[in-house]
Amino acid sequence: MYVFIAGVDGYLGWPLAQYLVVRGHEVAGCDNYMRRDWVAEMGSQSATPIRRMTQRLQAFRENFGTNLEFIKGDLRDYNFVWNFLRSFKPDAIVHLGEMPSAPYSMVDVHHCVFTQINNLTGTLNILHAMRDVCPEAHLVKLGTMGEYGTPNVNIPEGFFEIEYNGRKDTLPFPRQAGSWYHQTKVHDSNNIMMACKIWGLRSTDIMQGVVYGTRIDGMGDDERLATRFDFDQCFGTAINRFCAQAVIGHPLTPYGKGHQKRGFLPLKDSMQCLTIAIENPPKKGEYRVFNQFEEVYDLYELALKVQKVGNELGLNVEVRNVENPRIELEEHYYNPDHKHLLNLGYKPTHDMEAELEIILKDLMKYKDRILARAHALIPDIRWDGTRRKVRFLSK
Amino acid sequence: MYVFIAGVDGYLGWPLAQYLVVRGHEVAGCDNYMRRDWVAEMGSQSATPIRRMTQRLQAFRENFGTNLEFIKGDLRDYNFVWNFLRSFKPDAIVHLGEMPSAPYSMVDVHHCVFTQINNLTGTLNILHAMRDVCPEAHLVKLGTMGEYGTPNVNIPEGFFEIEYNGRKDTLPFPRQAGSWYHQTKVHDSNNIMMACKIWGLRSTDIMQGVVYGTRIDGMGDDERLATRFDFDQCFGTAINRFCAQAVIGHPLTPYGKGHQKRGFLPLKDSMQCLTIAIENPPKKGEYRVFNQFEEVYDLYELALKVQKVGNELGLNVEVRNVENPRIELEEHYYNPDHKHLLNLGYKPTHDMEAELEIILKDLMKYKDRILARAHALIPDIRWDGTRRKVRFLSK
Repeated sequence: MYVFIAGVDGYLGWPLAQYLVVRGHEVAGCDNYMRRDWVAEMGSQSATPIRRMTQRLQAFRENFGTNLEFIKGDLRDYNFVWNFLRSFKPDAIVHLGEMPSAPYSMVDVHHCVFTQINNLTGTLNILHAMRDVCPEAHLVKLGTMGEYGTPNVNIPEGFFEIEYNGRKDTLPFPRQAGSWYHQTKVHDSNNIMMACKIWGLRSTDIMQGVVYGTRIDGMGDDERLATRFDFDQCFGTAINRFCAQAVIGHPLTPYGKGHQKRGFLPLKDSMQCLTIAIENPPKKGEYRVFNQFEEVYDLYELALKVQKVGNELGLNVEVRNVENPRIELEEHYYNPDHKHLLNLGYKPTHDMEAELEIILKDLMKYKDRILARAHALIPDIRWDGTRRKVRFLSK
Repeated sequence: MYVFIAGVDGYLGWPLAQYLVVRGHEVAGCDNYMRRDWVAEMGSQSATPIRRMTQRLQAFRENFGTNLEFIKGDLRDYNFVWNFLRSFKPDAIVHLGEMPSAPYSMVDVHHCVFTQINNLTGTLNILHAMRDVCPEAHLVKLGTMGEYGTPNVNIPEGFFEIEYNGRKDTLPFPRQAGSWYHQTKVHDSNNIMMACKIWGLRSTDIMQGVVYGTRIDGMGDDERLATRFDFDQCFGTAINRFCAQAVIGHPLTPYGKGHQKRGFLPLKDSMQCLTIAIENPPKKGEYRVFNQFEEVYDLYELALKVQKVGNELGLNVEVRNVENPRIELEEHYYNPDHKHLLNLGYKPTHDMEAELEIILKDLMKYKDRILARAHALIPDIRWDGTRRKVRFLSK
């Protein structure tokens, strides 16, 4: 199949291009390198060194014997989007080209507005260009499990049947996102659902859990093929921050009580799931939602896992809770459904500790790069609009 | 109370300023006159002549003995929003300053993106400025009944209790909007709900039905106090187009079968309801939804009503269905709840025909202004992205 990846320079986009090419797909992609700028704005850098795109493309050619067709450009530019869809004519467009950080969107009004405009405009441009250029193509769009928030009921995959005052209908499950970034994914979901309904487009909207991992099979030891590993307060997830902290001897810092529950999956499972979605497109006009995660943990449990694996590797890992810079429920019910991908053949990796060991070993090579940006690990962006470093909580 | 009206030059904003001042409130407002430009872009004009703001303000002073404090500016400019909230310190902000047309948002990708950016940015700027300048103020935000779409169940007022897999929660009722414009109102609702939750703001989000009417009590015959009456395909509602058609001897043109059902309320009831919301603010942190309409009709019934009243006034009114340029259900269940405003004392006007008579008599004075722009009455903006005038349907 012809697959176009928007955001191919990113954490997921870069390994996905490799994964798909190995499976025999034809891959092209675009990026405007904004992720690199945002991380720099946070005073940080990827723990794994990220090469310039020319070097990445060279490595791609050498390792996989084929070119990755790449164009630089911005999804907010409609002519750019229209042109690449027109010339590549993809069977599937995997849209990973959005600003992906909750804290970044909460910095101030300007970051909030930038995030919403950037994410919505890119997706609206893609939908319009698909309508006009490749209406049969399949949009595989990355959403987030965070769209749903933490309701006190099970979370279905996108839709549910309700009975209200004696009548029935199948309706989108209500969304209750907790940051301006998460809201953009809700807005996108609503926009895409409408485009499928009125224009007969087809889309898989993936409510993805937290992805962790430094590598997929086949990346080998060519450093130029490595993907990003961010650990700053904005672009590093809790797992990433914990792993980076473990490596440099900094206490792991769950926010608040640390009983926030989230769904997780390893990077290689994310690649597997995205590929299943790509290879099994929905029918024309269908808007399909997948909840893409495998296991649910709370953040404190996660810290304990990183601690355990770290200590086995000879690191001396401590866990110390810090103030929660976010406004969120720290204790809540959480039980989302996730059957669609399993029904399509997803084989989950269950050994999180083995994955954590790989991550920690990879990161130990880059300890100096983490130490050089260690200040970026402790958050100061707060949901109330102020900016103050969080403090350790007394036990 | 101190009330700030964003969009005070518009169809609802201008009469609301008058209505509130008569009730003893202190009123200020802003506008950037974009509505005037959009209607001109459609090749149309308001049937009622709309004066320059300087003349409107002069008339306001002469008729009500007090100034309407007015500032020109754009809600997309955060400094502008911050400054007016800082200097006026309102008790309530009535946000009517959005692009309000479904067809306008469907013209092409540029109109779609403009609509979403314009509407979202203005509301996000207001929310941030409220947080920083007047966190106790009450945001009265205009949404639309169109946010809900046409589900096959009753539509509650914003929230409903669900039971799913044996657990219960009260959740936002799912939204299924049918145009890019309507989607902006859904996105706004999600953004405002979150701001109330994390920042403790208070807001009433009004899912308003279709408002009709040329006047409210107290406007008298001073033409400078009149509000807009748009009849073009974008900014004229179906009722407005029917009334304008009746006056110039053009057949009334319901779209498709004309069995689309909507909730309606007269302009004076909209003023009454907005004022009830303003004078009964929610508590701190509360996000409250009102469904604001009184009677449900389908568009064909409405055309017959306009025909009946028009014929009584000596007009010779014909009804002829045209192709539907929209993609929407033309036959559907529709039964939304609307108790909150009635519980707060709303006294509805039930005599739609009396209102239609007033409208038609007012419009007969401006027959020439409608005739001069009669081409704007027949739509060519289609939901499929093409632009072709609709044709009459054979009977």
